[in-house]
Amino acid sequence: MHCDIIDHIRRFVSLTDDDAALISKNLVRTAIPKKGFLFREGQFCKSEYYVESGCLRMYYINEKGTEIITQFGIEGWWIADYTSLSRQVSSGFFLQAVEESTVLSFDIDTINQLARQVPVFGDYHRLMLERFYGAAQKKQMFQTEYSREELYLNFSALYPDFMQRVPQYMLASYLGFTPEYLSEIRKKNR
Amino acid sequence: MHCDIIDHIRRFVSLTDDDAALISKNLVRTAIPKKGFLFREGQFCKSEYYVESGCLRMYYINEKGTEIITQFGIEGWWIADYTSLSRQVSSGFFLQAVEESTVLSFDIDTINQLARQVPVFGDYHRLMLERFYGAAQKKQMFQTEYSREELYLNFSALYPDFMQRVPQYMLASYLGFTPEYLSEIRKKNR
Repeated sequence: MHCDIIDHIRRFVSLTDDDAALISKNLVRTAIPKKGFLFREGQFCKSEYYVESGCLRMYYINEKGTEIITQFGIEGWWIADYTSLSRQVSSGFFLQAVEESTVLSFDIDTINQLARQVPVFGDYHRLMLERFYGAAQKKQMFQTEYSREELYLNFSALYPDFMQRVPQYMLASYLGFTPEYLSEIRKKNR
Repeated sequence: MHCDIIDHIRRFVSLTDDDAALISKNLVRTAIPKKGFLFREGQFCKSEYYVESGCLRMYYINEKGTEIITQFGIEGWWIADYTSLSRQVSSGFFLQAVEESTVLSFDIDTINQLARQVPVFGDYHRLMLERFYGAAQKKQMFQTEYSREELYLNFSALYPDFMQRVPQYMLASYLGFTPEYLSEIRKKNR
């Protein structure tokens, strides 16, 4: 699957062909092999990444040495460590490709410049940030109030295709399950 | 305490006096009495709120009827239900003044317009959203990895003044403690 950023932006705001050409000219496209990293813990996250194809995961490693996945990024999603990016501090996370992926990188200067040249790009980018932050606000409520089984069912309903794509142990890590518990729930709800 | 938004913006970007005048002209200032609401569950969050003075809390009521605080907003913070705002759906949260407060309201049209008229306002607003979203990304890590006592000590170190201002039962709700447990930890760490 491939998600062209110009088509994606046009779902939310109107772009002229000149606007589209200007945005396209500023794109830095990077192919990442499966298991390749955009950054690791201790490095800086210098860009926001728009996922054009493939799938990324953001995770940290806790004191016990366990990888804990906090986010996935699939086609049409933006992903970054926004603390590292906005405060220019090193990241506590890893950003890795789950499968062969292509991302478009936007550093802060490029976004600020594009927002001046194409004001609706600024509107689009703001809307994306608001939605992602909104999702983080709601996620906290879900994680407090939902049982683990409800979390699984809710996530399956929202992202049915995604469930098939990501290795089960990663999904378990994201949902805070053991792989065995995830397998039990899947059997029960088949 | 009072936190003038023009001073706040100037901590991050350079504003000319004309820029500052234009922003000031667009401000809608609202005084909220203690315990007054900006919105309740089921209503729409139509603006982002910059807290000029006072303190707000965002919370939801769970199935058991318990109020769970997910965020506080003090002077110089922006607060909103970003899902309700960006998707134009009703909110699952309440936004209430903990003490007599003054907020500046910015609806999406005003922000988009200001970002065109004063591009550095757009940069500032983007930086704020990135930092808040970044904090939400890290909060998830803290809540998974830290003991409740570590959460308390971390929060106290970051916001010492804040600890004195907010009623203890609210702080307990925010940290996911019972008020009794919070009181125990406070005694132990005095």
